[in-house]
Amino acid sequence: MQALDDLVGLLTRLPGIGRKSALRVAYYLLKTDTSFSEALAERIRGLKASISFCSICGAYTESDPCPICSASTRERSLICAVEQPQDVVTIEASREYRGLYHVLGGLISPIDGVGPEDLRIRELVARSSGGEVVEVVVATNPTVEGDTTALYLKRLLEPTGVTVTRLATGIPVGGDLEYADRLTLARSFRGRTKL
Amino acid sequence: MQALDDLVGLLTRLPGIGRKSALRVAYYLLKTDTSFSEALAERIRGLKASISFCSICGAYTESDPCPICSASTRERSLICAVEQPQDVVTIEASREYRGLYHVLGGLISPIDGVGPEDLRIRELVARSSGGEVVEVVVATNPTVEGDTTALYLKRLLEPTGVTVTRLATGIPVGGDLEYADRLTLARSFRGRTKL
Repeated sequence: MQALDDLVGLLTRLPGIGRKSALRVAYYLLKTDTSFSEALAERIRGLKASISFCSICGAYTESDPCPICSASTRERSLICAVEQPQDVVTIEASREYRGLYHVLGGLISPIDGVGPEDLRIRELVARSSGGEVVEVVVATNPTVEGDTTALYLKRLLEPTGVTVTRLATGIPVGGDLEYADRLTLARSFRGRTKL
Repeated sequence: MQALDDLVGLLTRLPGIGRKSALRVAYYLLKTDTSFSEALAERIRGLKASISFCSICGAYTESDPCPICSASTRERSLICAVEQPQDVVTIEASREYRGLYHVLGGLISPIDGVGPEDLRIRELVARSSGGEVVEVVVATNPTVEGDTTALYLKRLLEPTGVTVTRLATGIPVGGDLEYADRLTLARSFRGRTKL
């Protein structure tokens, strides 16, 4: 059936959805109310139209500037630098951080041909140089690219008098030493804290 | 973000998609081409319009009768009774069966209030009584409801002279005795075959 095959083909392009999952979804759509399919199609079509990027921090937003950048209740002396817009949503969900954000739009990666000039680094330097910002928390992933980008930002920002920090790397809460990889363990030793 | 939350809410109603997967899908849609979202929305909206049920066997089809019911190359003395339309697609994928199908539209389940009269059983009896049909293969799942339905069909159809058979139950190919549950093992003993 062409209509089914076409839909399954498109669904398998979505992340985390293989052929079997795509078929299950397609059969579910065949079985349920037309109103559900209509609503889903409408939301998918409308998503990109209603969500854009904040002109200040680069996060996903429905209004510009985004609610975080325009909130008077956020700590304006703190900026958290993240790789991509969804990282803002992830960090917000932890309810731990009360400062502002800055989306870099990627990480420095010479192999992939991504240099500092391809990222929103100039904008971060400009925002950090106003005198209001005291600390930039680099929240890039603990990978080669994340480490490289963090070090680059440190070297670039420290001359402006801003403190550059990085999220702690270590054994996850509820994790087990036995299952921690060598690098995570090594980093958790280096980053050990006094009790 | 309302647009994101709404889409995630709808996506989590799909089978096999939890909140994290739904978020990943939503972010993917935000990042990729608008043309992909448009195509996906169009396919979801159009699916139910282009696929309906075969008036003879009850399988999903784009034309009526379905390609299997109208094929001259299929064995017309064999009917395989299945629970739901997608079971036809699953069995066809095995390329093992060359007869016709009959979708029951469910299984007998007194607890859920589903009796024989709620299923397409009268239609199956009518199709089997024409004299052309020699065997009905019941391909319901090996569950309480599947067993009940299979026995009911056997009692109903055997007086018409039709042979009623059931798919073999046992240890799956590539499976391991150690991981087979007690009931599967018991059934595979009862259904043992001569080498």
